[in-house]
Amino acid sequence: MNKKLLIDATDLVASGGLLNRRLFLNSAIATAAALATTRATYGQEIVGEGQEDWTLYPGSDALEYGERSRFEVGRVKKFKPQVTDTNEDYWNLRTTNATTMTPHQHLMGTITPSGLHFSVTHHGIPDIDPDQHAVVIHGMVKNPLKFDIENLENYPTITREYFLECSGNSGVLWGETARDVQLDRMHGLISGSQWTGVKLSTLLDECGVSKDAKWIIAEGADSGSLSRSIPMEKALDDSMIAIAQNGERLRPNQGYPFRLFNPGYEGNTSIKWLRSLYVTDRPVMSRFETSRYTDRMPDGKSMQFSLEIDVKSMITRPSNAMSLPKHGLYEVTGLAWSGRGKVSRVEVSVDGGMTWADAALEGPIHSIMMTRFRIPWMWDGGPTILQSRATDEFGRVQPTREKLIAARGRTPNYHFHGIQSWGVDTEGKIKHVYA
Amino acid sequence: MNKKLLIDATDLVASGGLLNRRLFLNSAIATAAALATTRATYGQEIVGEGQEDWTLYPGSDALEYGERSRFEVGRVKKFKPQVTDTNEDYWNLRTTNATTMTPHQHLMGTITPSGLHFSVTHHGIPDIDPDQHAVVIHGMVKNPLKFDIENLENYPTITREYFLECSGNSGVLWGETARDVQLDRMHGLISGSQWTGVKLSTLLDECGVSKDAKWIIAEGADSGSLSRSIPMEKALDDSMIAIAQNGERLRPNQGYPFRLFNPGYEGNTSIKWLRSLYVTDRPVMSRFETSRYTDRMPDGKSMQFSLEIDVKSMITRPSNAMSLPKHGLYEVTGLAWSGRGKVSRVEVSVDGGMTWADAALEGPIHSIMMTRFRIPWMWDGGPTILQSRATDEFGRVQPTREKLIAARGRTPNYHFHGIQSWGVDTEGKIKHVYA
Repeated sequence: MNKKLLIDATDLVASGGLLNRRLFLNSAIATAAALATTRATYGQEIVGEGQEDWTLYPGSDALEYGERSRFEVGRVKKFKPQVTDTNEDYWNLRTTNATTMTPHQHLMGTITPSGLHFSVTHHGIPDIDPDQHAVVIHGMVKNPLKFDIENLENYPTITREYFLECSGNSGVLWGETARDVQLDRMHGLISGSQWTGVKLSTLLDECGVSKDAKWIIAEGADSGSLSRSIPMEKALDDSMIAIAQNGERLRPNQGYPFRLFNPGYEGNTSIKWLRSLYVTDRPVMSRFETSRYTDRMPDGKSMQFSLEIDVKSMITRPSNAMSLPKHGLYEVTGLAWSGRGKVSRVEVSVDGGMTWADAALEGPIHSIMMTRFRIPWMWDGGPTILQSRATDEFGRVQPTREKLIAARGRTPNYHFHGIQSWGVDTEGKIKHVYA
Repeated sequence: MNKKLLIDATDLVASGGLLNRRLFLNSAIATAAALATTRATYGQEIVGEGQEDWTLYPGSDALEYGERSRFEVGRVKKFKPQVTDTNEDYWNLRTTNATTMTPHQHLMGTITPSGLHFSVTHHGIPDIDPDQHAVVIHGMVKNPLKFDIENLENYPTITREYFLECSGNSGVLWGETARDVQLDRMHGLISGSQWTGVKLSTLLDECGVSKDAKWIIAEGADSGSLSRSIPMEKALDDSMIAIAQNGERLRPNQGYPFRLFNPGYEGNTSIKWLRSLYVTDRPVMSRFETSRYTDRMPDGKSMQFSLEIDVKSMITRPSNAMSLPKHGLYEVTGLAWSGRGKVSRVEVSVDGGMTWADAALEGPIHSIMMTRFRIPWMWDGGPTILQSRATDEFGRVQPTREKLIAARGRTPNYHFHGIQSWGVDTEGKIKHVYA
């Protein structure tokens, strides 16, 4: 049997009721039973039980490809559809961006189900027949070659858990006033998967890259031919052509049948529906690295090729998708990540950043993957500001919003990674605040 | 630029063409280019390229819950449907087992997509409304309590990657003759997921388990009330009530809204649609631990409560779902696991077990999870027997089929974990053989 723990003053690790993370790592919750006025923390007393229909008759058959319960259908991605202009007088069709955002308020663990992985598309999702699709490696190479999905499957693969984040994620936090948007609308442009693919270095080696080559122009087979310039150093380090996501082939909105994947780089560089890798000595200065995905700085100049994702975190629970029904014990949990490596520390504050306490990190911690953190919190019913602050293995610390804006100004739109605040009022309602 | 490797005699690590695993860990495949008569290993020469339809017009919008490409619809689970007898004269309905098997020949990495997770159901899949469902902990406890999904979500959770294997997996290998069944029909009753749940010890602690309690009878809400007896020692160690699989709530065939999960135990003990945990001092001797899921030994007695999954492996590629189009370089890859801990070593033989070479293991290696292994192999076009042999961190080695049968006889039906053989003929055709 587990031995019960009793909370004493040494368990209070920061003001506002944050408790030592070890209380959730051992037999843990017994603390709650010891403290709570009712017998159990969240369990209910047993009253008369009926016999539900599903216990009386045989259930249904399994499906060849399983689906979710009909009771889960509301747990979908936040959706901003594209608008297609079919003006016949115009020389072609124009499509605006479509965005779907991962509902982290409904998710647990660190893997995002493939059906709920975020996507940003600028020209819609092409319906590609894999037998008619290949990627060509050409330009400054000795042997230009082409690879279809079957060719790629024959190469040795690597499998890694990686997050993918759009540089526009959390962009609403650059704004002057704290907009009342839900967690998914705010932070939903990040997801995590197990990716399997062929290292780009393997394929480049086969093609024989010229020693003067410095960049690779990656281009997709979508109608807008979205393209980005990738530094050769990255391509030869850990870039891969991803051919599977969470064990199976990619979903169409993730680049089916294959995509480039640049671990830790902003999402749009991981070109979906990859059809061309052009090896060259300079970046191409494509539309998506000039008119978009650059960061305007306070001096009016723009920062280009700011490719690496910074260290960052978000509290997913409690968040503004829910409220706290009563004061008492809660778990504060969320996700932290860094485009450069492993998360080494996440701190949580419930007093607006005056005092901080270390959250427990769920292992094993993967490099360039979301890490789940959690810490117990005894809410006394008073108004509270919840915040999280991540540190990566290189000692980079997530900055306050004020510090980030002081350094980069208000106009960059991309790469927001400052600390974000959830305000809790005395009724347990939670909303996004600047604090 | 990567430096090319050249194969020499020291790279041959076992007879039949097995090459040192480091050749696939560095710039690797260059070896192939150096050896092959054609310029590239698998890449194709570029000939004229057309412009496909999907590059000309904007694609479709994303879905709120994403689905697979229409070109992937054939990659489904092998399916043995249930047969329901609706004889009105009989006092109730009778349903046979339904089984769906994971098609590992189509999968990469180690996570099984939730839609392709195997399932064995004895009474069909109940359609449970989570608002009408709870699990009761009662029996030899001080405070009987009931927990619904919302109660459970408030407790601290843990997230782990675990495999789940039916003890009937690979059962066809007990047979006298090597049946010509596909990989999924042979080894498809194992899958791997990221599971999130509440440790059972946390909930038992709240209920106050009697010191004389030794077992817990877990029962599901399916119409057959499938039940199994779980040793208290396991329940207090790492058992959990799983509330999420691969980030989202469980699929119906995995026990929606929650199931018991006993890491490393045979799958049927991880009771789905969990509704009762009855704490007691003896096992219940239920139908599914007497008439089924026991192992008949050569002396006529049955082994009961043989709960832990043994150390085991399978080669998924090449396997009998494919053939080798020409002699040359191939990757031999597969999955290895142990119900007791981590896989520490996988060896591969291409000469029917005379010589063995160490395969590379893909890290990080999780305890009680499938681990991917791979090794390069130069096939000379001759007849070959491919085998894999796993060892776990406690030094347990996967036995040959002969050795396993000598120890347990031919009748056990469950827990087959011997070495399995793929025969390759001179035309590159692959079939299941006894060797």
